[in-house]
Amino acid sequence: MKTTDYQTASEIVIFGALGDLSRRKLLPALYQLEVCNLIHKDSRIVGAARQEHSLDEFKEIVLESLQSFVKEELNQEAVDRLIQRLVYQQLDFKNKVSFGNLYQALVNGNKTRVYYFSTPPAIYGDICHGLNDASLITDADRVVMEKPIGHSLESSKVINDQVAEFFKEEQTYRIDHYLGKETVLNLMVLRFANSLFTNNWDRNSIDHVQITVAESVGIEGRWGFYDEAGQMRDMVQNHLLQILSLLAMEPPADLSAMSVRDEKLKVVKALRPINRDNIKEKTVRGQYADGFLNGVAVPGYLNEEGANQASKTETFVAIKAEIDNWRWKDVPFYLRTGKRMPIKHSEIVVHFKQQPHNIFKESYSELPANKLTIRLQPDEGVELQMMNKIPGIASQMNIQENKLDLSFSETYNNERVVDAYERLMLEVLNGNQSLFVSRDEVEAAWLWADSIIDAWQGTNEEPKPYAAGSWGPVSSISLIARDDRQWVE
Amino acid sequence: MKTTDYQTASEIVIFGALGDLSRRKLLPALYQLEVCNLIHKDSRIVGAARQEHSLDEFKEIVLESLQSFVKEELNQEAVDRLIQRLVYQQLDFKNKVSFGNLYQALVNGNKTRVYYFSTPPAIYGDICHGLNDASLITDADRVVMEKPIGHSLESSKVINDQVAEFFKEEQTYRIDHYLGKETVLNLMVLRFANSLFTNNWDRNSIDHVQITVAESVGIEGRWGFYDEAGQMRDMVQNHLLQILSLLAMEPPADLSAMSVRDEKLKVVKALRPINRDNIKEKTVRGQYADGFLNGVAVPGYLNEEGANQASKTETFVAIKAEIDNWRWKDVPFYLRTGKRMPIKHSEIVVHFKQQPHNIFKESYSELPANKLTIRLQPDEGVELQMMNKIPGIASQMNIQENKLDLSFSETYNNERVVDAYERLMLEVLNGNQSLFVSRDEVEAAWLWADSIIDAWQGTNEEPKPYAAGSWGPVSSISLIARDDRQWVE
Repeated sequence: MKTTDYQTASEIVIFGALGDLSRRKLLPALYQLEVCNLIHKDSRIVGAARQEHSLDEFKEIVLESLQSFVKEELNQEAVDRLIQRLVYQQLDFKNKVSFGNLYQALVNGNKTRVYYFSTPPAIYGDICHGLNDASLITDADRVVMEKPIGHSLESSKVINDQVAEFFKEEQTYRIDHYLGKETVLNLMVLRFANSLFTNNWDRNSIDHVQITVAESVGIEGRWGFYDEAGQMRDMVQNHLLQILSLLAMEPPADLSAMSVRDEKLKVVKALRPINRDNIKEKTVRGQYADGFLNGVAVPGYLNEEGANQASKTETFVAIKAEIDNWRWKDVPFYLRTGKRMPIKHSEIVVHFKQQPHNIFKESYSELPANKLTIRLQPDEGVELQMMNKIPGIASQMNIQENKLDLSFSETYNNERVVDAYERLMLEVLNGNQSLFVSRDEVEAAWLWADSIIDAWQGTNEEPKPYAAGSWGPVSSISLIARDDRQWVE
Repeated sequence: MKTTDYQTASEIVIFGALGDLSRRKLLPALYQLEVCNLIHKDSRIVGAARQEHSLDEFKEIVLESLQSFVKEELNQEAVDRLIQRLVYQQLDFKNKVSFGNLYQALVNGNKTRVYYFSTPPAIYGDICHGLNDASLITDADRVVMEKPIGHSLESSKVINDQVAEFFKEEQTYRIDHYLGKETVLNLMVLRFANSLFTNNWDRNSIDHVQITVAESVGIEGRWGFYDEAGQMRDMVQNHLLQILSLLAMEPPADLSAMSVRDEKLKVVKALRPINRDNIKEKTVRGQYADGFLNGVAVPGYLNEEGANQASKTETFVAIKAEIDNWRWKDVPFYLRTGKRMPIKHSEIVVHFKQQPHNIFKESYSELPANKLTIRLQPDEGVELQMMNKIPGIASQMNIQENKLDLSFSETYNNERVVDAYERLMLEVLNGNQSLFVSRDEVEAAWLWADSIIDAWQGTNEEPKPYAAGSWGPVSSISLIARDDRQWVE
């Protein structure tokens, strides 16, 4: 069955179509789907934004976006088909008349309307009201929202409530683009299609898990915006908890949205609370100071343009997260994420338990444990680190650690890695919510994150400084070293 | 520490030095050790055979052997060093005077004497007596014997007793060259250095094991010789049980000869007896008939040159072996080996259990189980078959079986694979018995094999015919199909 067989013809309405996310990610993603013939032939793409533009001008903007942000040479036929689908609607998000015009643009045919909110969350409510007033919401329509939603449990509830007034949970697609990554999806296959992993995915076999999301970039001119959030809200509550919940969830009974989301939610709910009592023991927050990146001097967070010298906002977080359930008792999940780290580098490392007894002492006084490494950035891949014999005569049992490529074997070498937004956009068009985040999970994640942020705010301690270009404050090494473990280098 | 640091200077005496095994395997193996500087500088190689030859003639024979049987270009320096070590001694194996001459050739210096019996077992006794009469045996000396030893428990006892009269078990090195293969050794590393395998190496995780040793050759002019033995004695009792015992043994406390051999012995002793009661259910024996191999007509076993038309000797055996211990209850080990099969192909396949539940029904209605494949011939290698996601957008969870190369990864691509005889010869020189077969194990293996041979002889059924160039009699497929399983293709 072709994927488009699942699809109904849609009106894909992008609010904020001229914005950065739309131009960098959404339009290129739609183009790639077009290349693969994965968009229903009768679907249209409706750009909606404040600015006044003719359709031709919008087409020009779309073309420029593709030229700038699609890496490969453009497929002219696909570009032509995509351009044919375009509609542009100038929209004042607070103006009823404006939505009346949108209504005029959309009412031809009974297509599923897919509303992609690529705008600040503050105006989600306005858009919803506008759509509703113009009779542009039915139970068949879908709304897509970018995470993080809000900056706390409370504010996320406000936004979710605003949208929920008009869209049911089954119509609401909350995007965390980490869930669209090839390797993150492969994680589910690895876990649930291989008995060697399924049977070893618990406290009996796994020693601990590390999740690292390191960015080399700093604040990039968004100081004020970032300072309101910080790394905890921006990354931990968001992407890292998503990865953690997929890694740690119980095997779902099937791949349906309901089953997968239920299991993920249970993990987030089972996270041991971190609060003022245990904050020092379980977390480290850091803030980058002046330093060097690739030999170039870069300013510290407080010396960036627009910085407020008194800011205590963290640009680095390390957390020892624990999951209070049967499967994961005594198996810590060490999370760390920061800006201005030496390289862009995101990976999950599952450390299996060390062998209880070592008969290869001649090669290794301590036998390295088996490790499953799932790389997310800069390139995606999965590796299994195992021990095997070094071929050769020199010594009978000379052994070493070998990396096995589990995902992008040579067979796939020439394939373009699908961008997360392409997959997620396709899933929206196909009406499959599995890879989107439920409201319950968003709120459970905020509950856990808020408690940590609150505990930090309750202390007089400042974030620990770390030199830009380093792997974070020394305390983050101590955090894991106290448990006789260390971060993977 | 260099490997030669373990070595004492030796007199390596090859009885039957001009024979086929010596020329094809032993001399080339010594040459390869020479290339790697793994022979003690003061060691000598003494060729002993019935024929009269001058030292120069012997040197010429050795050189020719190397030229014929070493695949790579010869390293002249190593050849020169090897040639320098050579001594030739004409020997009448039943003649005291003759051994007196050998004594003269050997008594200079107090070197360890390594006696390699590359002769028919029938004269092992004569050689031992001759050596003893000439005072050429001390507790420091070693004797190397080729398996199979004898053709039954009884006859193996006779031969072992003859040798044991003069050599203690600690001095006796029984060679099964399968134990020197790179991948067979890697099997120990895989099993005991990787928790993912160690923790999954039992009836809870493994469904069954297949061991296939297929030869495409027929009898090659040795009809009479082979007809006395048959595939059961020649291969099953010998190589297949060695592989089985390494696969199935409990983890040894260390890699010492004592520990490893003890564990192997326990497995062979725990093999469930096959006798006249269950022979039909547990075994299939076959004999090849006329057929085609690579498109060329080849004669059946009874039509080979020198054949006795009445022979019931089996050229193919399939066995469902069971191990009556805690680890392997209900995990069959299916063995099959035969001559005139389509290709030369030997491998072990460990079939892990299927996933109890399948959430990827769209890709596979039955999820393939994880498999560990250990290839012994024609090329050596280890592969792990696991499921992973096919990268790409087309379908969210399209998965497939992937083979991971576990042993000879690209790092080792250019390395010559060490021949089993090189390694085993080195182990003899180093005085390490781990890779040699104990008398207890030889006898336990014969006990099991004899019972099967006896049961066959007790029936009037003939071996099942199979066309040369096929994978054996249809019954061998039924043997495994009755258990709802099938041979790996």
